[in-house]
Amino acid sequence: MGTVEPRGEIGQRERILKIAARLFAEKGYHAIGMTELGEAVQLGRGALYHHIRSKEDLLYDISREYIADLADFAEHTARPEPDPRKRIRMLGKELVLKIAANQAELTVCFREIHSLTEPRHSEVLALHRQYEKVWRDTMVDGADLGVFRPYDPIVLKGVLGMYFYSYLWMRTDGRLSPLHIAERLNELALRMVDLDTSSDPVN
Amino acid sequence: MGTVEPRGEIGQRERILKIAARLFAEKGYHAIGMTELGEAVQLGRGALYHHIRSKEDLLYDISREYIADLADFAEHTARPEPDPRKRIRMLGKELVLKIAANQAELTVCFREIHSLTEPRHSEVLALHRQYEKVWRDTMVDGADLGVFRPYDPIVLKGVLGMYFYSYLWMRTDGRLSPLHIAERLNELALRMVDLDTSSDPVN
Repeated sequence: MGTVEPRGEIGQRERILKIAARLFAEKGYHAIGMTELGEAVQLGRGALYHHIRSKEDLLYDISREYIADLADFAEHTARPEPDPRKRIRMLGKELVLKIAANQAELTVCFREIHSLTEPRHSEVLALHRQYEKVWRDTMVDGADLGVFRPYDPIVLKGVLGMYFYSYLWMRTDGRLSPLHIAERLNELALRMVDLDTSSDPVN
Repeated sequence: MGTVEPRGEIGQRERILKIAARLFAEKGYHAIGMTELGEAVQLGRGALYHHIRSKEDLLYDISREYIADLADFAEHTARPEPDPRKRIRMLGKELVLKIAANQAELTVCFREIHSLTEPRHSEVLALHRQYEKVWRDTMVDGADLGVFRPYDPIVLKGVLGMYFYSYLWMRTDGRLSPLHIAERLNELALRMVDLDTSSDPVN
């Protein structure tokens, strides 16, 4: 907190997190030891522990960073947008691109969040709630403005489930780009919330 | 396979599976040993091993049974329904009720399917694909009949994601009944696939 690391140190830490997420996603958090991780990142025990203190530290960082980034984007970039339909599209696009760039991290978080000890477990869940609240407020605003149907928490969960589930099927090396997938899912989200979908342009 | 167990034996096995799923969902598959499971089901080691052979056997049964039931329903009960909109509602209702009755099992499957060894891992994935294919064929049939938009695999994944994600948020002791949730999600699914949602009755 508040310390300034030289760029190389941050790069090294990011690299370790990325490789650890991929290993945890492929083989399971419990199946990977610090020795195996050290080999994968090509660092000795001392050098590895210089960057991370424990395996749970890694799990915490992996589970937290993508949702912290999403919550930050939602709060500071999306929330100020006054048009709720545009705001849905901003939130949806950022979410799909984040999922595409962090599939291993999402896999690890969905599988292993229960392995985090307190207060970290609650902290990561609170970030998810904070993120979800921006979606919720967007749907409420849209209803208040008369462009969306009345707010319904089941619609909120349905929309979020549609996006989040893509961590299981999206192939970043597939023929559909994440941007294309984002646009299609945004269209579906708007069909779910719009008061009258038949008269709305898709984009 | 093919053996007939007396009813009491089946009841005992179902009871063990249910308790194991709950324990695995709460504390993690790797955190629970056979000794702890024996204590939870109040059976000694010998009696427990009479019903199940290993912890992986349990994981296999827990991950397989709900999706095997869903695939069977989809293939034999839903598929013969000629109206694609009715078929979507049948599939959606059965899925939500199954998720509501098997939240621990779905949690364990989503988290731990990678822990299954071959050929069991592939077998459970094949059941998921078989189940998904009935949804896919329903959307294709609806498009062919001119009631749904042209088939799009992203819509298929979006709809399934919306339903499946409910294992994370549905509260069977909550104020919304699984049946009510199913009806709302079915309505959203139809909004996603219908050619013209504005003129369609909701139910």
